[in-house]
Amino acid sequence: MLVLITYDVNTETKAGKTRLRKVAKECMNYGHRVQNSVFECYMDNAKALEVKHILEKIIDKDHDSLRFYYLGNRYENKVEHIGVKPSFKLDDVLIL
Amino acid sequence: MLVLITYDVNTETKAGKTRLRKVAKECMNYGHRVQNSVFECYMDNAKALEVKHILEKIIDKDHDSLRFYYLGNRYENKVEHIGVKPSFKLDDVLIL
Repeated sequence: MLVLITYDVNTETKAGKTRLRKVAKECMNYGHRVQNSVFECYMDNAKALEVKHILEKIIDKDHDSLRFYYLGNRYENKVEHIGVKPSFKLDDVLIL
Repeated sequence: MLVLITYDVNTETKAGKTRLRKVAKECMNYGHRVQNSVFECYMDNAKALEVKHILEKIIDKDHDSLRFYYLGNRYENKVEHIGVKPSFKLDDVLIL
């Protein structure tokens, strides 16, 4: 299924910047980056639980947030892109 | 239906910052902000076309991107949130 992961990490502190980098790095192990803080992951339920568990441990729940959108297996017509195509490197973990 | 709008606007220039602000402001007319660059909009097809058309005219397609995710009407179990709840003002249009 397609799982969309979006995140906001508060980067006002050095610790926040580190969390942001870690979240992005971890997401890269599971899917591909389509925007700065948006990853699309094609995975089964077990993998989805796994990445959720990992990301939950990285973020500071008082300052950051994660959202998961489960788009199922028939996602071809559920996604639309307009504009520039992404070309991110990990070091493009940008400060929100 | 639930339509998720995510965007990346390149804010390296003053014009980019203006575009970012305009995109966020426009999205606020159609849905609610759940993360910095993520809006959830409950709308019909006509409204979805409308907001897409408006946002397309605001962004610079060589530097920015929009993504639309169509989650249908049965979206209750398709969305999961972890961490801090959003409380954005328009002036929180943050620089990516």
